[in-house]
Amino acid sequence: MKRRGLMKTAGIGSAAVATHAVAAPAIAQDMPEVRWRLTSSFPKNLDIATTVSDEFVKRVGELTGGKFQIKWFAPGEVVPALQVIDAVQNGTVESGFTAGYYYVGKDPTFSFATTLPFGMNTRQHNAWIIAGGGLELINDFLKDYNCVYVPIAHTGAQMGGWFRREIKSLDDLKGLKFRIAGFAGQVLSRLGVVPQQIAGGDIYPALEKGTIDAAEWVGPYDDERLGFAKVAKYYYYPGWWEGCTQTGVFCSLKEWEKLPASYRTAIQAVASEQMNWALAKYDAGSPGALRRLVAAGAELRPFPRDMMAAAYDIALELYDEMASKNPKFKKIYESWKPFRDEQYLWFRVAENTFDNFVFSQQASKKR
Amino acid sequence: MKRRGLMKTAGIGSAAVATHAVAAPAIAQDMPEVRWRLTSSFPKNLDIATTVSDEFVKRVGELTGGKFQIKWFAPGEVVPALQVIDAVQNGTVESGFTAGYYYVGKDPTFSFATTLPFGMNTRQHNAWIIAGGGLELINDFLKDYNCVYVPIAHTGAQMGGWFRREIKSLDDLKGLKFRIAGFAGQVLSRLGVVPQQIAGGDIYPALEKGTIDAAEWVGPYDDERLGFAKVAKYYYYPGWWEGCTQTGVFCSLKEWEKLPASYRTAIQAVASEQMNWALAKYDAGSPGALRRLVAAGAELRPFPRDMMAAAYDIALELYDEMASKNPKFKKIYESWKPFRDEQYLWFRVAENTFDNFVFSQQASKKR
Repeated sequence: MKRRGLMKTAGIGSAAVATHAVAAPAIAQDMPEVRWRLTSSFPKNLDIATTVSDEFVKRVGELTGGKFQIKWFAPGEVVPALQVIDAVQNGTVESGFTAGYYYVGKDPTFSFATTLPFGMNTRQHNAWIIAGGGLELINDFLKDYNCVYVPIAHTGAQMGGWFRREIKSLDDLKGLKFRIAGFAGQVLSRLGVVPQQIAGGDIYPALEKGTIDAAEWVGPYDDERLGFAKVAKYYYYPGWWEGCTQTGVFCSLKEWEKLPASYRTAIQAVASEQMNWALAKYDAGSPGALRRLVAAGAELRPFPRDMMAAAYDIALELYDEMASKNPKFKKIYESWKPFRDEQYLWFRVAENTFDNFVFSQQASKKR
Repeated sequence: MKRRGLMKTAGIGSAAVATHAVAAPAIAQDMPEVRWRLTSSFPKNLDIATTVSDEFVKRVGELTGGKFQIKWFAPGEVVPALQVIDAVQNGTVESGFTAGYYYVGKDPTFSFATTLPFGMNTRQHNAWIIAGGGLELINDFLKDYNCVYVPIAHTGAQMGGWFRREIKSLDDLKGLKFRIAGFAGQVLSRLGVVPQQIAGGDIYPALEKGTIDAAEWVGPYDDERLGFAKVAKYYYYPGWWEGCTQTGVFCSLKEWEKLPASYRTAIQAVASEQMNWALAKYDAGSPGALRRLVAAGAELRPFPRDMMAAAYDIALELYDEMASKNPKFKKIYESWKPFRDEQYLWFRVAENTFDNFVFSQQASKKR
């Protein structure tokens, strides 16, 4: 005990001198009152996105002594679901909760914020964004749109979606009207698919009426809520166009620059916390949702391997073409692609070997 | 434009009525000055753990207007590396940054905070902790130690460690003096290994002198810094005892209960943010570190499959035995094990199919 007492005293002494000093903070009383609006792309019946929005605004308020109040709005309350970037850019709102790849029509470069077909999985994408220079590159690109990107949620690898008929070969894709978001539509169009971009809340009626033949959304947890199994029984996997799906808060650059540093820290820390919560909630809820969907008649199917292999080649060709004609895309792709390749190599060593081993043990031994 | 203007007005109206109200916060000026010490198990040359500690205390300070100041101490400055829980329990410090499984000597139940052999991967563990009831169960267990657990970092699946000689079969494990943390030592002892628990900073000299025959630590990023390749050239994978490794801040329950709610929120949000940063940093840094280690002579080897299969059976037997004699272990195991099994089933559908496909494409096509 004596020894510990001595060490304790010495420890306090050395730290008081040293490197671990707490940064001088602004005085709380001097903090300005700030009110922001956040418009979302995600309908309220998606309970994970809704809770993320609720908790985000609540906890940012809590961490700023109530001085930074953000109110969030469901799609259509302020602007339509897929016009979030426009609304931030033109100052209609100060921020929006959306997925970058909804805006590939403006520029395919938006996709890097969310995912690309045959891209990185959740961990790998986060590594690129947080520690691989990805966030800086995306924010540099977003300056032209008056936006700053703050990642706020992830779904994990998605499912391939709901099909009214089986896909047994590449031929079955010809003329297929498929609701699919982002870049993947361009890959699939080269395989004969007619891609459709439809916001989450409008997919079910389109599928029910047969206006479309198939639709992908997220995975069992959300898909069960949106009821797709009732109108299209074949449930395909994996969603090779979404090895991960990151969504974010796109803040107005102009408004962001006015914020005190501690308000920015509050946004970043709370968004990061919500990302972990959302992903955990998807992962925890998906197994049960999938069991219920299958029990209710959904037919689980892997995509044919030849279709995936063809799509893989097309995707990588498309990226090269895109890079050759779009300098903004090229600049980010030249960071993203080698980073992805290195991540694949590394994950094949420890992470994937562990996963494959334990999954095989479970499959063979049932314990 | 008119239409959007109308919707905007309607939107503001409906939200003002409604469900998205910001919680009434405490007034910043009324916040108390609080000073805490945080003692760490991780030596300063592990730059990820060091940065996590630095950023954690800095950003918590920033989010509390400088009123909540935490100072952190390296191992040995206040208490030795592996006595963090004791120091929090007896009030020597208010908090500690450590891995739960260092304390399996007190109770094997501590392992659930970190990982168990053939347990869950990073995503799955987070899902259990955050959305599967894991955190509540762990905190209930920790009451007897005056602790509250706040997860703060992850390493991802670890490597199997550094061996002075090759492991070609189960027989090669007999009598092997292996530095290995936590529960895994007990599994390996049933295969003839003599497990050793040694803190990070003391492993290298033990391996160099030949006091031990092998040592596992984390993965390429940290292992390169600790220099193990110079004294043991065979580098095995995967670390099947650490499909993930979560570390956390163990706060004094007594002190935690005195904190205003917003200080707790600051701790939780910043810790969650640091977890994402640490994992990203490990993932981003590991491929390059592994390349350098191999270039410098490290020989990469997969563990023999018969050894892993034997260890898998022993681990699951051991958990059953442990549950039959330790009610605290049993209580958490009965949540953890079925959750793990369901996660395995679900990950085998979308996530693992995606990973295996893209890894195989890369392996065969080199692009």
